[in-house]
Amino acid sequence: MYEGAVQDLIDELGRLPGVGPKSAQRIAFHILQADQADVSRLVEALNQVKAKVRFCVVCGNVAEAEQCRICQDPRRDPGLICVVEEPKDVVAIERTREFRGRYHVLGGAISPIDGIGPDDLRITELMARLGSTEITEIIIATDPNLEGEATASYLARLLGPLGLRVSRLASGLPVGGDLEYADEVTLGRAFEGRRMLNV
Amino acid sequence: MYEGAVQDLIDELGRLPGVGPKSAQRIAFHILQADQADVSRLVEALNQVKAKVRFCVVCGNVAEAEQCRICQDPRRDPGLICVVEEPKDVVAIERTREFRGRYHVLGGAISPIDGIGPDDLRITELMARLGSTEITEIIIATDPNLEGEATASYLARLLGPLGLRVSRLASGLPVGGDLEYADEVTLGRAFEGRRMLNV
Repeated sequence: MYEGAVQDLIDELGRLPGVGPKSAQRIAFHILQADQADVSRLVEALNQVKAKVRFCVVCGNVAEAEQCRICQDPRRDPGLICVVEEPKDVVAIERTREFRGRYHVLGGAISPIDGIGPDDLRITELMARLGSTEITEIIIATDPNLEGEATASYLARLLGPLGLRVSRLASGLPVGGDLEYADEVTLGRAFEGRRMLNV
Repeated sequence: MYEGAVQDLIDELGRLPGVGPKSAQRIAFHILQADQADVSRLVEALNQVKAKVRFCVVCGNVAEAEQCRICQDPRRDPGLICVVEEPKDVVAIERTREFRGRYHVLGGAISPIDGIGPDDLRITELMARLGSTEITEIIIATDPNLEGEATASYLARLLGPLGLRVSRLASGLPVGGDLEYADEVTLGRAFEGRRMLNV
């Protein structure tokens, strides 16, 4: 509907995840009226990400060198590995400041519907890491949904026979939430995982 | 939280309208994993919009030449001018295929709260057009909200004394909608603007 260049930009923006036709149009008009310097910064940021960023050869997290900052950090416990689906999960866990070990990013979760099996995830790389360092515990922190649970079970079966401690993040009521609004599966898990207060 | 280039891209994306921190992160990871060719096309589209697109000297619509496609089109009636707030309104009206005249894009609406007065809109340019061509009717198609109505009243007062036909798009119930869900202002307007069926 628009003249060439504006329509091209709307089309390209519309291919980004979560950007519908209306948002694409709104962003395109913002770009059209924005300062050249702001648009140049965005273009530069896009180019830099493609030029500089790669994935850590050890853990699969995003990195600007061969290894990511966490794998390079000697203060992080190499014996504790937290297995996550995506780099954004690393960021979420880092924000808690609770975990001082290292990560392993699978690059997704097992999902037969999407045609993603164990071979499509960085599981071979995880097994290779186990051989080369002394591991005290593997914490499986995949998403608490169908795919994440399937991946956790698969990993637990794979890692169990190696005599390693394998744990899974707790499921239960979100802190600050309202019991009334919890779905029944979450509430069921909260019962299952209840802790004794008087022992 | 992320390493340099990824965080820079998240920050830049987060400055776009309607893109929150979560969407910015999601888009950044999409870019990171996308084909270089796709990202190059997006970068090229951004650069092209800034390089090529400007505003039509006649009507203020987006254009890739001095005049937009509509102003250049000899089949469009030059005596009929539809006044809109933004270029996206031109696209919305073009989609109806109801209007064969030309447009005038104000570049916004009068909004004292946002410090936008008549002098910030392309009203002088509109008055100049009226002097140079024979105009049969001016259709005011600003948004049916407070700012759009204020702008319409202002234009009506300005254009009235010139002996021009000035009209305003009808307000009323949206077609395909449910009377029950119409807000009271819209329903009130629908009563005011009712049409006789038996005349």
